[in-house]
Amino acid sequence: MAVPGTALRRLRDHLHQTRLLGSISSALYYDQNTVMPAAGAEWRGQQLALLAGELHERQSSAPYTELLVAAEAELDSEAPPELRRNLELLRLELGRQRCLDPALVSALAKAQSRGNAVWQDARARNDFGTFAPALAELISLRLEQASQLAAAEPVARSPWEILAQPFEPNVSKARLEELFAPLRAGLPALLQRVAPSSTPEGSGGDLAEALQERLCAELLDSWGYDPQRCQRSRSAHPFSCTVGPQDFRITTRVVPGQPLSAFLATAHEWGHSLYEQGLPRTDDHYFPWPLGEATSMGVHESQSLFWECRVARSRAFAERWHHRFCQGLGSDPWNGAFGFWRALNPLKPGLIRVEADELSYGLHIVLRFELELALLEQAMPVEELPHHWNRRMGELLGVRPASDAEGCLQDIHWAEGLFGYFPSYALGHLISAQLAEALERDLGGAGAIEDCVAQGEEERLQQWLARHVWPLGRQVDGEELVAQVCGSALSAAPFLAYLERKLGQLQG
Amino acid sequence: MAVPGTALRRLRDHLHQTRLLGSISSALYYDQNTVMPAAGAEWRGQQLALLAGELHERQSSAPYTELLVAAEAELDSEAPPELRRNLELLRLELGRQRCLDPALVSALAKAQSRGNAVWQDARARNDFGTFAPALAELISLRLEQASQLAAAEPVARSPWEILAQPFEPNVSKARLEELFAPLRAGLPALLQRVAPSSTPEGSGGDLAEALQERLCAELLDSWGYDPQRCQRSRSAHPFSCTVGPQDFRITTRVVPGQPLSAFLATAHEWGHSLYEQGLPRTDDHYFPWPLGEATSMGVHESQSLFWECRVARSRAFAERWHHRFCQGLGSDPWNGAFGFWRALNPLKPGLIRVEADELSYGLHIVLRFELELALLEQAMPVEELPHHWNRRMGELLGVRPASDAEGCLQDIHWAEGLFGYFPSYALGHLISAQLAEALERDLGGAGAIEDCVAQGEEERLQQWLARHVWPLGRQVDGEELVAQVCGSALSAAPFLAYLERKLGQLQG
Repeated sequence: MAVPGTALRRLRDHLHQTRLLGSISSALYYDQNTVMPAAGAEWRGQQLALLAGELHERQSSAPYTELLVAAEAELDSEAPPELRRNLELLRLELGRQRCLDPALVSALAKAQSRGNAVWQDARARNDFGTFAPALAELISLRLEQASQLAAAEPVARSPWEILAQPFEPNVSKARLEELFAPLRAGLPALLQRVAPSSTPEGSGGDLAEALQERLCAELLDSWGYDPQRCQRSRSAHPFSCTVGPQDFRITTRVVPGQPLSAFLATAHEWGHSLYEQGLPRTDDHYFPWPLGEATSMGVHESQSLFWECRVARSRAFAERWHHRFCQGLGSDPWNGAFGFWRALNPLKPGLIRVEADELSYGLHIVLRFELELALLEQAMPVEELPHHWNRRMGELLGVRPASDAEGCLQDIHWAEGLFGYFPSYALGHLISAQLAEALERDLGGAGAIEDCVAQGEEERLQQWLARHVWPLGRQVDGEELVAQVCGSALSAAPFLAYLERKLGQLQG
Repeated sequence: MAVPGTALRRLRDHLHQTRLLGSISSALYYDQNTVMPAAGAEWRGQQLALLAGELHERQSSAPYTELLVAAEAELDSEAPPELRRNLELLRLELGRQRCLDPALVSALAKAQSRGNAVWQDARARNDFGTFAPALAELISLRLEQASQLAAAEPVARSPWEILAQPFEPNVSKARLEELFAPLRAGLPALLQRVAPSSTPEGSGGDLAEALQERLCAELLDSWGYDPQRCQRSRSAHPFSCTVGPQDFRITTRVVPGQPLSAFLATAHEWGHSLYEQGLPRTDDHYFPWPLGEATSMGVHESQSLFWECRVARSRAFAERWHHRFCQGLGSDPWNGAFGFWRALNPLKPGLIRVEADELSYGLHIVLRFELELALLEQAMPVEELPHHWNRRMGELLGVRPASDAEGCLQDIHWAEGLFGYFPSYALGHLISAQLAEALERDLGGAGAIEDCVAQGEEERLQQWLARHVWPLGRQVDGEELVAQVCGSALSAAPFLAYLERKLGQLQG
């Protein structure tokens, strides 16, 4: 420990314990979504609420406040900037935590857990009606939370913006409108260029579960998966989860009729996990300090999307992996590597966000962003959600859900009270595209990613990210990260240019 | 909540939270032993230590003491006896917790963790010498603990007896000598009747892992396994684990070369789980009060052994399941149902406790009980342990270990400082046999268990246990339970009579 001073040392120990508690919640979440029997949900909710209460207490108590004040007093003119930044981030977080009524924190934890359970059931039975009251309760509790948090915000923010801060620090509705406008304007035009005839052939078949499992394992092996530190399981919804500084989990699922789904989800979740694994943990100013944490969901998503879209959906990748798929299958339903590449990139507006192609994905997010604002800030009754969902789906993507299960019940986020989260997914696409441009400049110019993939040298991509992106932690927010690494402000242009190029090649 | 009074109500809430915390540890333990990657161990240790510290604090703090005092003051002459018993049990436990010097608690935790690590290594290298000092330190710390705890004991108890209380409430050395003497006298004679020629034939083969999995699943299905409340996983060592009032887990393992091991372990662990599932949780005086807990390890083990030995190793069961095994295998390596029954009951004195048959198991325990007493109360130097282990092994079981790894280093218990635990395993055999006699009296006389099994009516056995045994919780200790349910004091006679009968049939 190079951090000097008694209060600073005690503060570090306090943060270490806080990390322990938080990671216990992560372990319970992982268990809940992989093996926990359904009837365990109610008790699990109580366990998580207890931990949430303790975490809140640790992050807002008077003794902790005094500890932080004492640590701030130990800062002198020679204190390193990292330490300053850590204390600033802790001060901001403390201000937010102290605004919150503990009763609300506990009520929210319970409502989130109940929301998840009710949603599972409502989605299975395609019954929005049973979910609506749980959603309304979550919205009301989250609005109450935003109102309590407002006093701690360093600048004036709307309720939605306040709730979005934990996912995307410093995000604003105005900036998102600015970034999303080119998507709203440009994506439908790109989508229209996708004639029905251009949807890929030969992807209607299926792959045996065991073969999918084997290919996922091969992919992870070739991308540095270490079974001593990682674990892969099945869950209803793929996710990545860090349970300890040396304990990384990812989950996937096999989707009948979608032979490449588990494979691409594995690439995606592994991208999240690589970022977590690459966060700095040894430097004195990082773990367990704020600087050692992921900076935003947008940056997180940029890392998963990089490995899913820029690598696993690339043409070079399709050419390298095509024969492995055919070998396992004993036939080639794709009629060659180009067909396999097209199967990895089905361009077809669909109903389901997590199955969406790169052209439509952004519009799924625009839809959710609009509806979240309507629910939270424009007093739209939850009962109207299915109607407006289906209407805007038609307008933006030209498709209409036949049921709420494949409509507004498809995502878990709102069922867990996560509002303000969805835009990060779209930001992830933009950040990934802009980082990819910077990476290619460094590694030999346009096409450098495809070249690395063609040579089986994905570790060079990992090395670049490990040098430029992962170690930053919370030194910078998402926009600052892009400016620092790429030398230009975040914009939708690199993403749209990339899509234009890829579409041309896929249709060529 | 029918429990009257304010302090009583607050006490109940306190116990509920304590249960939540304890069950979080259970969930982490389950995760650790089923999916956690190896590198996660160090952090997991820190998580569990944090929870253990919180649990100890909740069970020994001054505010908790005041709460218990206030609750006791609310008892009036009309208080129900269950409430009285709950407060007595809490008072006894609090007295024990408060006797302990925190420095000793911490020293013990470290010594246990070190003991485990040194033991793993010593066993792997078959080097008792490196383990001996760690064992000596554990003995010395546990004796110090017993001496601190002595003041809290309601009656005078020897150090070994004090350490055995958490596993077997009210156990005494004299009573165990009384119960074990017939085993020491009777089992060797039974073992001598097992001629080498009588070891079963045809069990040397193996069953494919997938077939073992399927048969285990079929077994659980037929015994009421409810996937809504239960989960089955794999682990290095089989165990049963309750994660919440509606969340029950069991694990098994497939052992190469032992085709029936996973199947019998499934029966065993399911027996533990049935007891946990049957503990009373709805009555006001039970969950989360002490009365709602399992009463002793001996009673717990009696339930697992009932389903493993009395049911799954019974002749009627072999006759019902033989064709399923043959069907899955496509052949009959057992030459008929009788051969299959003998394969389920291999009678052969061996060196390893966890692989022992019903005839030798008790002698493995007698050996350990004698040596624990010698180490803790008769000043036997730890260096002499291997010598006495091997000598008594020869005298009791007629076999001598070729190495300490398969001798006195085989069990984990002493390496973690667990003295006083082993006798519960033997008590489980005795209790199971005596309960089985009572059950048969109620269900139609001798042979009633075999009759139920032959008809596929194991649920009648479950119903009897669910009425007479499981709901008692901690109303009674192990001996009281037997006296109440069977109408006679616990003795070794039913167990020895059962073995005599079974041996005759197996050799017939």
